[in-house]
Amino acid sequence: MNFLEERIIKDGIVKPGNVLKVDAFLNHQMDISLLDEIGHEFHRRFADCPITKVLTIEASGIAIAYPVASAFGVPMVFAKKSKSINIDGEMYVAEVESFTHKNKNQVVVSKRFLGPEDHVLIIDDFLANGCALQGLISIVESAGATVEGLGIAVEKGFQIGGRVIRNLGYRLESLAIVDAMDDETGEITFRKQD
Amino acid sequence: MNFLEERIIKDGIVKPGNVLKVDAFLNHQMDISLLDEIGHEFHRRFADCPITKVLTIEASGIAIAYPVASAFGVPMVFAKKSKSINIDGEMYVAEVESFTHKNKNQVVVSKRFLGPEDHVLIIDDFLANGCALQGLISIVESAGATVEGLGIAVEKGFQIGGRVIRNLGYRLESLAIVDAMDDETGEITFRKQD
Repeated sequence: MNFLEERIIKDGIVKPGNVLKVDAFLNHQMDISLLDEIGHEFHRRFADCPITKVLTIEASGIAIAYPVASAFGVPMVFAKKSKSINIDGEMYVAEVESFTHKNKNQVVVSKRFLGPEDHVLIIDDFLANGCALQGLISIVESAGATVEGLGIAVEKGFQIGGRVIRNLGYRLESLAIVDAMDDETGEITFRKQD
Repeated sequence: MNFLEERIIKDGIVKPGNVLKVDAFLNHQMDISLLDEIGHEFHRRFADCPITKVLTIEASGIAIAYPVASAFGVPMVFAKKSKSINIDGEMYVAEVESFTHKNKNQVVVSKRFLGPEDHVLIIDDFLANGCALQGLISIVESAGATVEGLGIAVEKGFQIGGRVIRNLGYRLESLAIVDAMDDETGEITFRKQD
């Protein structure tokens, strides 16, 4: 087990309905030492890529993207979730349909902060159905920039998002892939990775 | 001028309606070196306080709070904005009325992450009318914890928020206080601070 899997076993909580709570250290209260370690690990895994920007989505993605951008020495950009439609032509917009909530949201990034010269590492804390990540990929493609890869802290391996994104040919690295959870015993099964 | 005031002069944009855009380096695209410097500066200013938690509010506050929490070596907690009312008794809740939008929002923090033993430094990127900060103060007080101080990157000195919070007796440090802006000349006047 790697350091994140160990921490999930120690402090993660399995709730009914395949809910994994990691809010004690990852997405409500943040353990900065752990996040710094996540930043270094993604830097190690994507060290061969000429990253110029780290892109994430509000809110909890920001705390994962920060140490990654710091490790690469590049700016971080976060996409905003927007319900409004008064976009003024200065924004890249992706319409994101949520499988879970059955509604549409807009994800927006200012055109000033992504361009054809950029090599982008997309970072987020969680991957389940992959709606948010697909929106971020769409925005990078709209900018004419290159998606070098995607880095996720916790992937729910039993949901469709990871498979869709890998099938599309993108390089996706998840530090922990949860293949099964049992809310009665609290047991969490991680996918074996090299 | 300090490092943040200099950066605002260099890359900030004044728009009609007293709008100051700092989204190229502070709250959409983030310059990690600048944010690290902000973290060190707040650590220097509050070095006499026994800080145990850094509290902020989603979304852009997270990127300011991260380096501050890192400098103090303590966890960071971010409050979530919530429109729903299905709070299950496990959350501290503050009703925040927006002067600007004339609506009410809830700001919530899990009770597991703040308690009477905590000494809290509240951090945010912007202070204008102070609604969000008042909500964060209310949550810390609900927890029986101590507000050691508040650290803000950019305060709009011509709006009421800073005066209200200082009048309430809280120690509020803003790295840059904008007293006036002119959208025709682009001129920005900062308040002189010691």
